[in-house]
Amino acid sequence: MPRYALKVEYHGAPFVGWQRQPDHPSVQGAIEAALARLEPRGHTIAAAGRTDAGVHALAQVAHCDMARDWDPFRLSEAINYHLKPLPVAIVDCAEVADDWHARFSALERHYKFRLLMRRAPATHLEGLVWRVNRELDLDAMREGAAHLLGLQDFTTFRSSICQAESPVKTLDALDITGIETDWGPEVHFDVRARSFLHNQVRSFVGTLERVGSGGWAPDDVRRALEARDRAACGPVCPPQGLYLAGVQYPDDPFAG
Amino acid sequence: MPRYALKVEYHGAPFVGWQRQPDHPSVQGAIEAALARLEPRGHTIAAAGRTDAGVHALAQVAHCDMARDWDPFRLSEAINYHLKPLPVAIVDCAEVADDWHARFSALERHYKFRLLMRRAPATHLEGLVWRVNRELDLDAMREGAAHLLGLQDFTTFRSSICQAESPVKTLDALDITGIETDWGPEVHFDVRARSFLHNQVRSFVGTLERVGSGGWAPDDVRRALEARDRAACGPVCPPQGLYLAGVQYPDDPFAG
Repeated sequence: MPRYALKVEYHGAPFVGWQRQPDHPSVQGAIEAALARLEPRGHTIAAAGRTDAGVHALAQVAHCDMARDWDPFRLSEAINYHLKPLPVAIVDCAEVADDWHARFSALERHYKFRLLMRRAPATHLEGLVWRVNRELDLDAMREGAAHLLGLQDFTTFRSSICQAESPVKTLDALDITGIETDWGPEVHFDVRARSFLHNQVRSFVGTLERVGSGGWAPDDVRRALEARDRAACGPVCPPQGLYLAGVQYPDDPFAG
Repeated sequence: MPRYALKVEYHGAPFVGWQRQPDHPSVQGAIEAALARLEPRGHTIAAAGRTDAGVHALAQVAHCDMARDWDPFRLSEAINYHLKPLPVAIVDCAEVADDWHARFSALERHYKFRLLMRRAPATHLEGLVWRVNRELDLDAMREGAAHLLGLQDFTTFRSSICQAESPVKTLDALDITGIETDWGPEVHFDVRARSFLHNQVRSFVGTLERVGSGGWAPDDVRRALEARDRAACGPVCPPQGLYLAGVQYPDDPFAG
């Protein structure tokens, strides 16, 4: 059976998350249902990141196995046709080797978090950013974020229902960038690691927002990390600013 | 009565446009209803641009007259409170002179049009851009746009229901910029003039898209303009990529 890698963009709002659940709309379920219109049978697809309810993707990567040979472009068009009108789109598609796996072959995940700094309610960006009605000190946030880099025990920054075997992970990057937009100043958090714990990025961002608004000192992030205690974490921020922005593989399947 | 200038951002989708209409939701009507919650009586506000159904604003400017003195910041917060949950937000507010007028004092309007160039359906940007599933030649579009600049008879580019006294207007700028985004390449049209005819920007963009996709030569834009005939216009593009992006006054009322 030929295997295809799918690059998937979606709006998280209407879904309980990536993962298929009985009687609830999921991104995985939506794509599998579209595949069943192309090749009628049960389909099970795997993805690099199991995003939570309300979390978006710019470039989730999944793979599917098809019975017949598809031209990758035509396969993406056919899936998109059957996904309508859901806010899910296959933005790229490529044939991959039989043993290539969207989840297990991945070297690094990149999550982006968009925070909009202003008092007025969001209009065009409603559901696409976390709006914070305070001015944040980006330098203080960067100083706090630096404590989180590298190999660490992230017990403080994972949810109590996290199923990962170990809380020890390596955080490759947590970059904080201020960006002027037509809607006001945004703060973008670009977070990269081989893998993430449940709610880890939202725990980081919620905690760093406390630093940016002056409630915490930058060094309090280190103390929270060293506590290895979920209760030491700052507030977990809402999901609507979070995007799975990219997945890195030894060879980019979409490069061809 | 003190007069206040309001900078207004809105999502065009739920509205029949800026202008109040009986029994239809309008942006003007929504703001006037919010003002009536603050000072119970009939309110009539004026705006710089009467945007059509589905057209957005980043920085529409309107003015209102209040019976009592308001701190401008508190006035904007109070209006926003009563606008909820509509996608309309007062993003700035300033007291202005009694004879200052949002419409008649304006020197120039700036409209921005966002076009997203890709095949896959939009997800996060649905309703916020015009998606075109062809690659466009920006240089050809710029060459076509150059014919439209300056003092011209724009009969070709105004709708048959346009109520302006004269089709002769001066187009100050029509800049076309390619921008890479997380969703793919966008083309932004920045169009500036003292005033616009009905459907003028959407007639420009629809016509220039024909040039970019190769259906028209750049010089066909000149021929269409010189025809002074609505039938010579290219297709009028949809409203959802159009934003009233700014209004210029002799003195910026929001500069203080």
